[in-house]
Formats: sequence, structure tokens, C-alpha cells
Amino acid sequence: MDVICHTIPVTEPSDHTGAQLDHLVRRGWTPEGGQDSILPNHATRWLSARTGLVETSTPVAPDSALVVGEPRLPDGVRDALAAVVGTEHVLLGRDDRLGRAGGMSYVDLMRHRGTGDLAVPDAVVVPADPEQVQRVVELCAEHRIGLVPFGGGTSVVGGVTASAGDLGAVVVLDLCRLDRLVSVDPVSRLAVLQAGVTAPDAERMLAAHGLTLGHFPQSFERATIGGFAATRSSGQASAGYGRFEDMVEGLRLATPRGEWRLGVSPASAAGPDLRHLVVGSEGAFGVLTEVTLRVRQRPTVRRYEGHVLDGWTAGTAAVRALAQAGVLADVTRLSDPHETDLAFALSGGWKTALVRRYLRARGVADPCLLVLGWEATSAAELAARRRASLRVLRSARPVTLGTVIGEKWRHGRFHGPRQRDALLDAGVCVETLETATYWSNLDALRSAVRAALVDVLATDGRRPVVACHVSHAYETGASLYFTVLVPRDLDDPLGQWGRAKAAACAAITATGGTISHHHAVGVDHAPYLPAEIGPLGVDVLGAVKRELDPSGVLNPGKLLG
Amino acid sequence: MDVICHTIPVTEPSDHTGAQLDHLVRRGWTPEGGQDSILPNHATRWLSARTGLVETSTPVAPDSALVVGEPRLPDGVRDALAAVVGTEHVLLGRDDRLGRAGGMSYVDLMRHRGTGDLAVPDAVVVPADPEQVQRVVELCAEHRIGLVPFGGGTSVVGGVTASAGDLGAVVVLDLCRLDRLVSVDPVSRLAVLQAGVTAPDAERMLAAHGLTLGHFPQSFERATIGGFAATRSSGQASAGYGRFEDMVEGLRLATPRGEWRLGVSPASAAGPDLRHLVVGSEGAFGVLTEVTLRVRQRPTVRRYEGHVLDGWTAGTAAVRALAQAGVLADVTRLSDPHETDLAFALSGGWKTALVRRYLRARGVADPCLLVLGWEATSAAELAARRRASLRVLRSARPVTLGTVIGEKWRHGRFHGPRQRDALLDAGVCVETLETATYWSNLDALRSAVRAALVDVLATDGRRPVVACHVSHAYETGASLYFTVLVPRDLDDPLGQWGRAKAAACAAITATGGTISHHHAVGVDHAPYLPAEIGPLGVDVLGAVKRELDPSGVLNPGKLLG
Repeated sequence: MDVICHTIPVTEPSDHTGAQLDHLVRRGWTPEGGQDSILPNHATRWLSARTGLVETSTPVAPDSALVVGEPRLPDGVRDALAAVVGTEHVLLGRDDRLGRAGGMSYVDLMRHRGTGDLAVPDAVVVPADPEQVQRVVELCAEHRIGLVPFGGGTSVVGGVTASAGDLGAVVVLDLCRLDRLVSVDPVSRLAVLQAGVTAPDAERMLAAHGLTLGHFPQSFERATIGGFAATRSSGQASAGYGRFEDMVEGLRLATPRGEWRLGVSPASAAGPDLRHLVVGSEGAFGVLTEVTLRVRQRPTVRRYEGHVLDGWTAGTAAVRALAQAGVLADVTRLSDPHETDLAFALSGGWKTALVRRYLRARGVADPCLLVLGWEATSAAELAARRRASLRVLRSARPVTLGTVIGEKWRHGRFHGPRQRDALLDAGVCVETLETATYWSNLDALRSAVRAALVDVLATDGRRPVVACHVSHAYETGASLYFTVLVPRDLDDPLGQWGRAKAAACAAITATGGTISHHHAVGVDHAPYLPAEIGPLGVDVLGAVKRELDPSGVLNPGKLLG
Repeated sequence: MDVICHTIPVTEPSDHTGAQLDHLVRRGWTPEGGQDSILPNHATRWLSARTGLVETSTPVAPDSALVVGEPRLPDGVRDALAAVVGTEHVLLGRDDRLGRAGGMSYVDLMRHRGTGDLAVPDAVVVPADPEQVQRVVELCAEHRIGLVPFGGGTSVVGGVTASAGDLGAVVVLDLCRLDRLVSVDPVSRLAVLQAGVTAPDAERMLAAHGLTLGHFPQSFERATIGGFAATRSSGQASAGYGRFEDMVEGLRLATPRGEWRLGVSPASAAGPDLRHLVVGSEGAFGVLTEVTLRVRQRPTVRRYEGHVLDGWTAGTAAVRALAQAGVLADVTRLSDPHETDLAFALSGGWKTALVRRYLRARGVADPCLLVLGWEATSAAELAARRRASLRVLRSARPVTLGTVIGEKWRHGRFHGPRQRDALLDAGVCVETLETATYWSNLDALRSAVRAALVDVLATDGRRPVVACHVSHAYETGASLYFTVLVPRDLDDPLGQWGRAKAAACAAITATGGTISHHHAVGVDHAPYLPAEIGPLGVDVLGAVKRELDPSGVLNPGKLLG
């Protein structure tokens, strides 16, 4: 593989290298030789009993079995790209291209395991800076070559699928060399970060200034600043730090029509807020190269604790009360009884058994785990905020499990994707999906999605687990995040999940939820977008797309289908 | 005048009638026979001494002197409109048309006083409901008649100027009959309000449900829900309740291409947030007919108090500290020394003299008044929030003036426009303008705008007062609101202000502020928008406009010029 990502950032070097990145994408989330990717025996036993899982070791096709066509990039275009970024940053090798072939959805990972067809880019271009990105964008527009912006490659909705659409070839634009903290304004608490900076690198570089971004989605370990903005990401501490869109103050976008910069003040009435048109545009309007972000003082104290509420209705009422009283913990996460049960089952061990027994003794019929986490710059501030939360929570009569459960959650907060790798190895069809709605519609939405998933997946003796949690609460409503586990249909794994996902999306649309609260649209949700924003909404997005990307080369097939 | 606005709202009747509305717009802000519109003698004396004011009683042209042409509306269009809204709701009379001729800027009011040309609409159409609005919009598009949406008529940037552009005629769409609270969802804390509901009516109707919107801009007495959304309004309690855009959950828009509804959940990653494209679109993309808003529990306790900080630098540092610690009072408003001096001077009296003496005794060289106001649903909550604010404020060593000053401000919070009427009568050129920027640029921006205004207006012995305050603070920056008073150039009043406004706008643009923090773009700021959002931003807005309003009839000349 060609060596990439060797530019020296102004402030601090980043950990990742191109080599790491490639093989990570190829094999799933877990790094080569990484931990946490083996399913414990008790979990396998539980899954077999609970879901009817039979095959617990499923074959992965060897690399060589994956069909990778010859690059279709015309020589002239390759040379022109090389003239911009350097020959060594136009990657045509099989591994390089496979390494950026799609994202991290179940379907993407199954394709990398040899199931179905994998869309592999014709080349990977790795620009050094915003100026090079701009020239690459213009070149692709000129030659009508599809261009897929690529950060951490963590999309679970087909957002980085290397589809050429009706174009002759498609190039992945890997932004990993745009890894700099460009500037910090400590007075205004602003930081300009390049789009390819990963979340851990962003936190490390900001920490040197005593600052934090506070954006901790489950994709934290791999995802990038540009990806967060392009997809309207929301982190686990969204109640404290806001959604990513709340942090975005300014944007620098490379479009086929030239550079576009937005953002001069924290708020404005100078017409529509066009930043909100770029945030969430998923590379269809341009390639983000820099994002100006509101940052905060780095917390020095934290406390994460677990509580159990009895039943989903009591649980969501409590979270709603916290949200509407303005006293949500920074992390506020409520699992439904199915997810609580799943968490206990996968944890296993005598401690979990003790907790279950304790809850029964306390008369909790339908345990719903509530994790609350506060982070602050002083113990007094944390104590005051915690007191305010617990005062409101009291009326829900929580059974308090203390900080052990809370800290356990915090330590494992980014492990979900690794655990999924292990489940994939064990023959499980495992995927997540999410939505959001207003409080008065939340129960109906959860029931509808759950019923749709169970109905489609409970075939041939399979007994699906459909677990759900609220991880993002607002004054007017909340998100719902579903985790699905079911024995894989080894004869038709993609069809099995495809039917379930379609049923869930139809249920979401029919029940009035959003088709995505924080995973974005990508390819997978594009058919459902018109129901949410109306035909006029689609026409408006189309008009913006035609204005900025007249030749239609940017991220073909995403957002607008 | 024809009788309008007689529909019966579902919940509560509104106070205003069409008759009131007309004469209010015609004469300025102050209602016929209203209070607070006479300038006290001590204020006139102070203005003469301070600014060089000579003429203190300026003539207003009689109504009959205003040039109002014959309506240019083709008979066929008039009949078609009448078929939709009823003949009695297509107003062609001189007073009705004059009553919706422009907004409330200094220039608008001077035109109504007989200076310069007044753009008078060819007709006023007063639809009863969203369906009628939709049909009127389609009719105007079909016949290529300009359509100006009109709520409270409080725009100070030419946002409701009845310009026909290159069209043959222009109609004002008065939304006053869309005055209903459509629905309330107390669980989700959502309310659907029609666009023509005034802010006081909204508060009164919501109060019946124990709820509040919490949006209190200075235009509160007249402005409407639709206008707030169309202009990205921000209220005086924005630190507590958010800007209006933060309250908007859903929108219903009548466009020439049909109805467009947006908003299914509190947050979403389903592509760009198109609500932010409609909020701030100033009637150029469609006419808002309903807005779904986040509402809150009505506060039961409040406390407003005055503090004085020494100097602008210390004052803004204190407000920044409050904002960045997350402990802003709901109302947080800092006057610069000029505005503090102006407030004392216009108040007059022995109490003010005592305050001045007290501040001198405390060693305050450059008094900056800071008003802090908290509203809460319990005394304990208010006390806790107040303690948190004052703890941060302490390091700025405030001189506390207690609640008298705070309550005085609260009682007079909506009186500015009436006071302006009195100043207009007294021969003063009086206007406001505003901007916002990041904290590190705030001083530079204030100095630049101030210098530009003083430079242009200090002619022929006139000594302008340029006062400034911060009324909206954010973690990353703040707004600046300027009030200008200068003896009117009786020979060229519009030119006098026009040159000053142009100089201020140029200074804002050059110094990197936004051209408007909460007054919107309208006609007046349109020339400066390209500098803020870039040529691509203008192209994108143009593309959206062409998509939704292909015949270009909606609010001609606003936003995009």
C-alpha cells in the first residue's frame, strides 16, 4: 500500500495512518488483533436459547474472493489528479480501493465478508489541504467523475458507498490528511478544525488548550469532524453539549462552483441560516474542508451512575420531566426492558445476577436502566446539577445502582461496534436503526417499529431480540435507538435484513417519526425522505444540488437517491 | 374602512381589529390617544444641549398630502381574489392601502409624515385561513401580481415595503384573520399558532393552558408569529427562552407550487434542516400560515434587577463569563456608557441624580447598566439560578442598584417605539440598527460602527448620540444594538439617515459582523447580504426562490434585492 497521511499537523500529530485505516475498514470495526471482539461463551449460550441461534461460527470469504474490477479512471483524469495531489496520493491498488468500499452498516460489513456485490471505487485520492480538495472537486466535475467524500468511513446508511451513478467512474476522496487544528480563539471559545480530523484527535488537540468539543457518538473512535457535520451527528452527551449542528459556527465547503464559506456570528437574521443547509448535506452539495466549532472548557470532574425505573412508561415520563425542567444530565440514556435484559444477559456473571435479584426484591417488574452522567469544571457545579436532576427524578421512584453501573457504561460506550464484529462472526444478524418524534407520539412509534421488526424477522424458528433506548432527549420529544439481533438467514442474509429495515422505515414514516435522528440519509433512507420533507422539500434540495453541483458528480445517489 | 378581522377564533378572541391596525401604522407606533408619546421637557432640554437640537416641533404632512395612486389591480384579478376571500376582504380604499404601506423604520415613518415617496399597495387582501392564503398565493403567481405578506407591519428594514418590482401591481396580504391557536400538545409542550397571531394574543391564549412562548422582542405589542419566524426574530429573554428559530418545530408555508409542511421531530439527521431555510425567508419563498412552536410552563415568579459595571470592557467580559459558564439570566442586557448616560438623561428627576451621585461615590468612572432578569416556576429555582449568575458576576465587582431599576426597565421594555414617535415629533432623527459577532471581535465592531455613524452624522453643528447595548449573548459572541439620535436635517432627512445607515452597514461588513442579528434583511440590508453569505449563498437562495416561486411574485425586492 502506498504510504499516505504523512503530513505534519501544525499542532499535534495524529495517531492514525492510512495503513491502519485500510485494514480496519476491510475487516469491520475492531482493529487487527484488537480486544473486545470475542463473544463470551455465556453470551453465545444466551443467544442460542433466546433467539434460536444455531450456527455460531460463520465463514468469512477470503479477500481474494471479493470481486474488484479494474479501475475505470481515464488516464488523463488520473494524471490530472496526480498533478494536484501528487502521484503517491492517487491510489489505484486493490487493497486501497477495497479499504474505502462502503461504510459500516451490517450490509456493508456482510458485503466485505463476501455476500452480494461490493461497490469498489476506481481510485482513492488523498488531498493534503482544502485547496487541493477544491481542485479535485473541480476536476471531477469537469470530467464527470463521481466523487465520494470519505472521513472515518463509519456511515451505517450507505453514505460513503462508492456508487458511480450514471457516471463512468467514481473516486473516493479520503480526507485523512486534512487533520489539523487550524486555529483556536480562546476568548470566543471557537476552534477551526479540518474536516478529516478524527474525534479522538480533535479532543487531544483541544485538550492542549484546556478545551473540549464534547461530541461523543458511538462512532467516536473513527469518525471525523467533516463527517459529523455532513451527517448532523449527535453524540451521547448531546443533552450537555448539544447536537453537532449546535456546535457548528462556520463551514468551508469545496463545491464545483468554487469555495463557499459561511458563518460570521453566533446568530443572525440575515436571511435563512444556510449553515443548516450545508450541515446534513452529506457531501451532495460540496466537500467540507474546515468546520468552525464552538468549544468548551474541559471538564475536570465527572460522575456516571445507574438507576433503574420500573417500566417504559415511567422511564420515559421521568426523562421527559428532566428535559422539560431543563435538568437533563449531560448523558441521559434510558433503556427499555428488552435492552436492559439484553445488557444483563451479555454482561453475565454473578454481579449481574445479584442486580437482577436485588431489583426483584425491590419490586421492579420491568427494569429499565437509566444511565445519568454529569461532567463539570468543578465539584460544586457537578453537585448542584446532579441535585437538580435527582430532585426531578425522585418522583419516578428510581432504584439507584450507584456509579459502578454508570462507569461500566462509560468505559464501554464506544465498544458497541466491536461487539457487533464478534456477533457477526457468531452468525448473528445484528444492526441498529434510530428515529425521533415528539413525546406524545413516542410510545406509538416504539411499538410500531418494534412490531414491524419482530414481524418480519420471526421466521423459521428465529426469535429476534429488538431492544430500544432513548439517548437524546429534548423538551418536545426524544430519539429512539433500536438494536436488533436475530440468527442470520445464511441463505439470504441481505434480503433478511433488507426486508426488516424496509418494514421499520415504513413504520417510522407511517407513525410520523423522522427517518433518522443521527445516522443521516445516505442511500438507505433516501426513498423515505420525500415522505418527511414533502415533494417540495425534495425539489428544493434538488435545486440547491443543481446550483452547486451542476454536473451531479458529488456523492452520487446519497441524500436525494 | 371596510370591517375586517371578525372571524371568531377557536380559543379566545383577539383584541385588535382592522380599524386599530390601520391607524396605528399610519401614525407611528403609538395608538391614537396613547400614552408615553410626549417627550418630557427635561428630555428636550437635554437633547438640545447634548445634540444641538433646534427645531423641537416638526410638522407632519396632512393625510391628504400623501400621494396615493389609483389601484392598478386588473378587474379580473380583483374578482378572482374576491371569489376566494370575499369581496369585503379585498380592500381598495385609500386608508386601507395607506395603512399597509411599509413598516416601522425611521424612513418608513418619515414617508408617512410626508417626506419622499411612499410605496402604496394596489390592494389589501385579508384571507381567513391557510387554505385561502394558498389560493391567493396561487392566484397572484398565475397573474404575476406581487404579494407582500403582512403581519404586525413592524419591519424596520423595509421587509413589508409594497414594491411591485417589475410586476404590474402589488397586493398586501394582511394575515390578521389568521389569529387562532390551532392546537396544544401539553405532553410534548407544543403549540400550533396561526401566522397572524400577535405576540400578546399568543401569550394570552397560551396562558389559558398554563404555558408561555417566552418571546418578548421590543415589537411585542404588534408583531406576529409569522413575522417572528419569517425574520428570525430574537426576544429580550433570548438567553432564557432562545431565539425564535430555537422555538420553531414545524412550519406550514403557502407557496406558488403548493403547500409545504415541515417538522416531524425535535431533531433530525434526515438531510439539511429545511426549517432553517424557511425561517428567515421573509416571505420570499412562501407565506407562512402556521407555526408549530415549543412552549414552556408559564413562570410564576420573576426578579429583575439593575447592576452597574465600570466600563464597556469590564461589562462585556462579565456578560461573556455569564454566557460561557451557562448562567446567563433570562434577560441579560448591558448598556455601554453612552446608552447608560442616555437612559439617565431621558429619565431625569432627582432619583436619577441620586443614582449618578452614588455611582461617583463608589468610584464608577464609566457606568454601564446591566439589567438581569430571571423568570421561573418556583422561588427556589429562581433563587438557585440567580445565585449561580451572581457568583460569576461577582468578579466584575458590580455596583448593585436592586430591583427598582430592573423593574423600571421591565415596565418600559416595549416603550421604545412610542418614545421614538415623540422624538420624531420633536425633530429628532432617531433610529436603531444591530449586528452580532464573536466575542474577540466585539470591541472592534462596536468601535467601527460607532465611528462610522458619528462621522457621517456630525455635520452642521449636530452632535449625534450613538448608544449601544448587548442584549443577546451566546457562548461564542453577542449582539450589538445601536440607538442613534441626532437633530434631523430638515432639508434632507432621508438622505441624512441613508448616508449614516450605509456607513454603518459598510463598517459592519468590513469588520466581520452580521448585517442583522434580529431585524432581518428586507430591502435595506439586501445589498450587504452577498458579503456575508458569499456569491454562492446568493445563488443558492436564488435557486430556492426560483424553485418555489418561479414567477417571482413573493415579496418583491426583499432578501435578494
